[in-house]
Amino acid sequence: MDQPDFTLSAGPTMSSPRVQQAQGQPMVFDYDPVFQERFRETERLVGELFRSANDVVLMQGEAVLGIEAAARGVVKPGLKALNLVSGVYAKWFGDWLRDYGAEVVELEVPYDEALDPAAVEQALEQHGEIELVALVHSETPSGIENPLAEIGPLAKRAGALVFADVVSAVGGTELRTDEWCVDIAIGGPQKCLAGPPGMSMCVLSEAAWEAIEANPNAPRGSFLSLLDWRHTWIEGGRVKFPYTPSVADINGVHAAVSQCLEDGLERVIGRHATAARACRAGVEAMGLELWPRSADYAANCVTAVRCPQGVEVKPVLAHVRERYGVMLSGGYGELADRLFRLGHMGPGSRSLYPLVAVSAFGRGLADLGADVDLGAAADATLQVLSEAGEAIPA
Amino acid sequence: MDQPDFTLSAGPTMSSPRVQQAQGQPMVFDYDPVFQERFRETERLVGELFRSANDVVLMQGEAVLGIEAAARGVVKPGLKALNLVSGVYAKWFGDWLRDYGAEVVELEVPYDEALDPAAVEQALEQHGEIELVALVHSETPSGIENPLAEIGPLAKRAGALVFADVVSAVGGTELRTDEWCVDIAIGGPQKCLAGPPGMSMCVLSEAAWEAIEANPNAPRGSFLSLLDWRHTWIEGGRVKFPYTPSVADINGVHAAVSQCLEDGLERVIGRHATAARACRAGVEAMGLELWPRSADYAANCVTAVRCPQGVEVKPVLAHVRERYGVMLSGGYGELADRLFRLGHMGPGSRSLYPLVAVSAFGRGLADLGADVDLGAAADATLQVLSEAGEAIPA
Amino acid sequence: MDQPDFTLSAGPTMSSPRVQQAQGQPMVFDYDPVFQERFRETERLVGELFRSANDVVLMQGEAVLGIEAAARGVVKPGLKALNLVSGVYAKWFGDWLRDYGAEVVELEVPYDEALDPAAVEQALEQHGEIELVALVHSETPSGIENPLAEIGPLAKRAGALVFADVVSAVGGTELRTDEWCVDIAIGGPQKCLAGPPGMSMCVLSEAAWEAIEANPNAPRGSFLSLLDWRHTWIEGGRVKFPYTPSVADINGVHAAVSQCLEDGLERVIGRHATAARACRAGVEAMGLELWPRSADYAANCVTAVRCPQGVEVKPVLAHVRERYGVMLSGGYGELADRLFRLGHMGPGSRSLYPLVAVSAFGRGLADLGADVDLGAAADATLQVLSEAGEAIPA
Amino acid sequence: MDQPDFTLSAGPTMSSPRVQQAQGQPMVFDYDPVFQERFRETERLVGELFRSANDVVLMQGEAVLGIEAAARGVVKPGLKALNLVSGVYAKWFGDWLRDYGAEVVELEVPYDEALDPAAVEQALEQHGEIELVALVHSETPSGIENPLAEIGPLAKRAGALVFADVVSAVGGTELRTDEWCVDIAIGGPQKCLAGPPGMSMCVLSEAAWEAIEANPNAPRGSFLSLLDWRHTWIEGGRVKFPYTPSVADINGVHAAVSQCLEDGLERVIGRHATAARACRAGVEAMGLELWPRSADYAANCVTAVRCPQGVEVKPVLAHVRERYGVMLSGGYGELADRLFRLGHMGPGSRSLYPLVAVSAFGRGLADLGADVDLGAAADATLQVLSEAGEAIPA
Repeated sequence: MDQPDFTLSAGPTMSSPRVQQAQGQPMVFDYDPVFQERFRETERLVGELFRSANDVVLMQGEAVLGIEAAARGVVKPGLKALNLVSGVYAKWFGDWLRDYGAEVVELEVPYDEALDPAAVEQALEQHGEIELVALVHSETPSGIENPLAEIGPLAKRAGALVFADVVSAVGGTELRTDEWCVDIAIGGPQKCLAGPPGMSMCVLSEAAWEAIEANPNAPRGSFLSLLDWRHTWIEGGRVKFPYTPSVADINGVHAAVSQCLEDGLERVIGRHATAARACRAGVEAMGLELWPRSADYAANCVTAVRCPQGVEVKPVLAHVRERYGVMLSGGYGELADRLFRLGHMGPGSRSLYPLVAVSAFGRGLADLGADVDLGAAADATLQVLSEAGEAIPA
Repeated sequence: MDQPDFTLSAGPTMSSPRVQQAQGQPMVFDYDPVFQERFRETERLVGELFRSANDVVLMQGEAVLGIEAAARGVVKPGLKALNLVSGVYAKWFGDWLRDYGAEVVELEVPYDEALDPAAVEQALEQHGEIELVALVHSETPSGIENPLAEIGPLAKRAGALVFADVVSAVGGTELRTDEWCVDIAIGGPQKCLAGPPGMSMCVLSEAAWEAIEANPNAPRGSFLSLLDWRHTWIEGGRVKFPYTPSVADINGVHAAVSQCLEDGLERVIGRHATAARACRAGVEAMGLELWPRSADYAANCVTAVRCPQGVEVKPVLAHVRERYGVMLSGGYGELADRLFRLGHMGPGSRSLYPLVAVSAFGRGLADLGADVDLGAAADATLQVLSEAGEAIPA
Repeated sequence: MDQPDFTLSAGPTMSSPRVQQAQGQPMVFDYDPVFQERFRETERLVGELFRSANDVVLMQGEAVLGIEAAARGVVKPGLKALNLVSGVYAKWFGDWLRDYGAEVVELEVPYDEALDPAAVEQALEQHGEIELVALVHSETPSGIENPLAEIGPLAKRAGALVFADVVSAVGGTELRTDEWCVDIAIGGPQKCLAGPPGMSMCVLSEAAWEAIEANPNAPRGSFLSLLDWRHTWIEGGRVKFPYTPSVADINGVHAAVSQCLEDGLERVIGRHATAARACRAGVEAMGLELWPRSADYAANCVTAVRCPQGVEVKPVLAHVRERYGVMLSGGYGELADRLFRLGHMGPGSRSLYPLVAVSAFGRGLADLGADVDLGAAADATLQVLSEAGEAIPA
Repeated sequence: MDQPDFTLSAGPTMSSPRVQQAQGQPMVFDYDPVFQERFRETERLVGELFRSANDVVLMQGEAVLGIEAAARGVVKPGLKALNLVSGVYAKWFGDWLRDYGAEVVELEVPYDEALDPAAVEQALEQHGEIELVALVHSETPSGIENPLAEIGPLAKRAGALVFADVVSAVGGTELRTDEWCVDIAIGGPQKCLAGPPGMSMCVLSEAAWEAIEANPNAPRGSFLSLLDWRHTWIEGGRVKFPYTPSVADINGVHAAVSQCLEDGLERVIGRHATAARACRAGVEAMGLELWPRSADYAANCVTAVRCPQGVEVKPVLAHVRERYGVMLSGGYGELADRLFRLGHMGPGSRSLYPLVAVSAFGRGLADLGADVDLGAAADATLQVLSEAGEAIPA
């Protein structure tokens, strides 16, 4: 089979030529002075991207590594945690917290809704002494965005550490790590930044570090250890790596984050919001139903669409990929067969990519017998892109 | 301004990742054995692409170099030439023929029509002793394809040398150089092959060589000299270049032609035909008029669209580029302000690229006040792509 | 500072253009059919490289991840392990074994010597009931190669699982995983394969899997879990990843291993051996002392050189990098200040790269006052390369 | 056969990763605003590189195109030209001048010597009314550099137009186009700039333009026409190309020239001078004889070495390429079998590349039976590089 013409999936998503070229640069020794400076600069850029003055740790491995590392780092047996669940990833995170010995209170909403800050506040009051509040900012598996801006400060006021999985949020939607009181934020480069899927961007507050240092169970001398990075790299003056970083991925992330900041973070976020709006308009005009019950909390990274009655997810995806060369995504985990996801991240948030996603999806459904209005879909998608004006082409 | 998201112009057009990587390979000495073999292999591949057993000459410079070189090569003062004109390029070619001293008879049709073989036959009879018949296979400036398959043999039977500009035809539409009695065919890699715009692919029959050798005015010891390539490179056993070839462009053309042949020439041509049909369907459904008076001779490489009343070409193109990141083309030469051209060549003939071209164009027109039906356009475009079935994704 | 002109370090080392281009390919979704097939093919190629029919697991993270994953996988409290130590990495591995609860017997030789199979046999007899024998095939920090071919079968006969760190051995020296009874072999792509430093290539025998499955402490539901890969990816028919693989690194490793196998594994190994021999000849002719007490067990990947009296390692390295653009390595861990390492891996094992390493090193020493014979060094290095004949240029 | 490991030839020579990546960028339409600005910026950078405020014309085709275009542009029948000959290229240029109708006076020195300004002055006086003085700044075929700085002003004072072939001089040795009164300077990007071999960088003074405009024989409406570029591109406000430029090559040249200017032109030239000195020292220490009779006028781009008695050029070159993967050059034209050329241009002028050239050459000679002192050669080469201090690594 040929390479896909368009990767408009839930990520890894298609990268820009700049990122590709960065990934393809000659390999250098990790102790080469040029690489070391590149690594440090990448840390600074990531801090800017997260709007944070806290320490940045760039672990080599997709974001789940950073998430596990942070969870194992802070959780000691008996730690009281409030896990906020509006989707598959948050659910799984709760399992981890329990595995590591936390006493977990879970506040769960249906997976097609976002978390409600009032309910969080109530839960914090009710359960008292919560030491850790965890949530997923943008639930990639279902395209739901949670109000981290409100929940972070609430949790902080209640005295808890705030842990946020921002993997598919960073670079695609507003994120103010420090202002929103997020102690541990873990981002991934392969979503809205359209970088390589090989790194965990971890941002940790001093409070987070204290908790981890104080935890006898926190990984030490392990690939999962944030402390190794702190003690060897950060405290050693950023000259010695505890583990060999992936030279190519650092180059790729450096390019991806640089591109985002040079374009202007607000502008890039605006572009993702427009693409998402266009995609939703197209899908609804086609006659389909969005997965999120309200567009208010539909994510900027992917648009989740309820699988229509009588349609099966996998054959549609396979057909769209084979016939039209467009790679979309289905659901994930327990939602795998219940929804489709159209990605609009990175380069895919630009230009007419949303139209490509909507039309390939719609035409594929039609080919397999579904009753969809492709003309209305295209018209509506283009209408949003047109009205968005100057935010689009940037 | 940012790089374009989509280059769906009249060419140079966007290249494939494979071509890009070939262009970006480490540079080597032109006398390196690896390069020399690469050069010879590229000649063989080009011969296969042209379906010709004749000599291939790869001159460094866009196709106009090869066209000029061939014209200067064959034309001696007083040579009787029949120049067949259905567009801007053929018209210019006639000027060259006259400049070099030929006695030119011109058979011209309106630029929105194709040549008529019967009229050519008649002209050949009428003017007797025609030594050269020249035509443009695919008139890129107006998206018209001429019946070279019929005209070539006609001209040959009349005893003339047949010269065909196949710049935007090769790789996008049927071309059988030898079978169709074409003595001199000049192709360009930057159109349907989506290669770099830096080479003239010249294919010359023995009769063509004889004519050039016999012409005292043919360039010799000149960058314009086909004979230099024959005497130094071909007759010298293909080990010594008369001029330094562009190493990077040879790599790029090698990749582009290899890709085309590996995909299967028929299949690639079918894909271009489908893309063109889809594009025409979209444009007409939108309510616009095609430039070619009949779809029978609309080109596979670009779809030319008549500029509607009250609309100006340049502002539309600029708007579509700025707002949607899509680069289309206007007319060229005297047709510059009378038509638009949507390119569907190389990668742009695949997947939903035709929809991107049609929709960016339509939405741009609408933004500037034109009355177009974008939904109908998308629907019609997708309908063609869907019906074309398995030819599309390849 | 500029990029280095030559990276002749202990790895990551400079990659080939082919690997660079593979790393720079357009990013695709990890569930794209093209990527999935690429992943499976990479597994097959890695199996061939290791000369093994056992399962291959490609974990995303430099080789230390795979080593930790395997060690945690097999070690349950009380497991009796014989750790064979001839260098820094093996020493550290023993610490890990103890951390995870193993009862560790250590057989240690000075770090400038290789392990002695007879001593291993004796230790196995003496300590009885050893369940795990661990060793490092090629000790990168000190350029020592251990006789895995002899020790593996010995250990197997004694009923132990055999664990071998082959990170810098694979692709540079003979390795016959199955024939040598290695149950767990962990390789790294950034050494002799000159690929990206972002992957652990793990090869596990059925006996290894059984031990891990039977170990309640083996990581499960963790980025460190080999079992997750077995249960989700392998047993699930190789269609579902437990963690998102690094698309770019898979492309890079695929290219690196393909290159090695296409060149011919024996030939590539021969080239590394020649480069190492040339480098040693040069260093000794210069008047310096090799770190390994005998050339019999000097590694093929790097040549370790004893730091001469009165010379400091770091200033020399910094000077050679700044003045000559050549990146070499010093020692590592406790050997950091006692030796230099000249790498000759991947492309660096070809052509005159060994001369570049030797001469930059020697000239740098001379610049800082050392008394070395650069002419003799160059002469000796070139002599070896010349005599090696046809093995070199391949 | 494998790709060469080192291309240290007379050019095209190995390019930097930056140039390679520029060449491999996505192709865009030549009328894309981003490309047009890139083209204009490349013109400005080339002007800076030539230290000229005159018009820059970037013709697509290796430098011989620009040389022919300029010669045909200025020469009208009967024009009195003084052709200064110290090598093969200048000799050929005289043939062209005569072909185009000039009355040519030739001042020739042996090809292992440089031109003498006093002799030029004398010739100018003697022949009176010379309208054009032509010379080659750096004779690539024999590694001789001529004193353009002195000859240019002499010729200008005598009222002649000054034509200089600076193909292998620009970027490698001092060149002050305007200050030295050069009316027409033609450079090539594939030599000291280590760019692609697909472009002629032409710099023309107002006097040159006037001469061309006034020449009825100057090419017009031709790929060889400088006037087409002036009338269509320059006078049309730099928005319309007379011929499609090679998008990839413009990107490559833009990168190559940018790199040179960012590094600092003086510093880059110093690096070439050092490399040439090192190479000469190595060759002489080996016991061989340089081709130039005096190092005073040995070129910075290549070091020409007299072929020793009893040695044949081609077998040595083939052996060095096959056995050591190093591509060197022999002589060219009538000098083909009389000398070797070691290139040290672009990246090849950095680091220890001169040692690689010298040693591969020397070892190859030794392999074929020549008596050369490789140790002395390496020692001497490294000595020069060491003494050159900080100019090297930049």
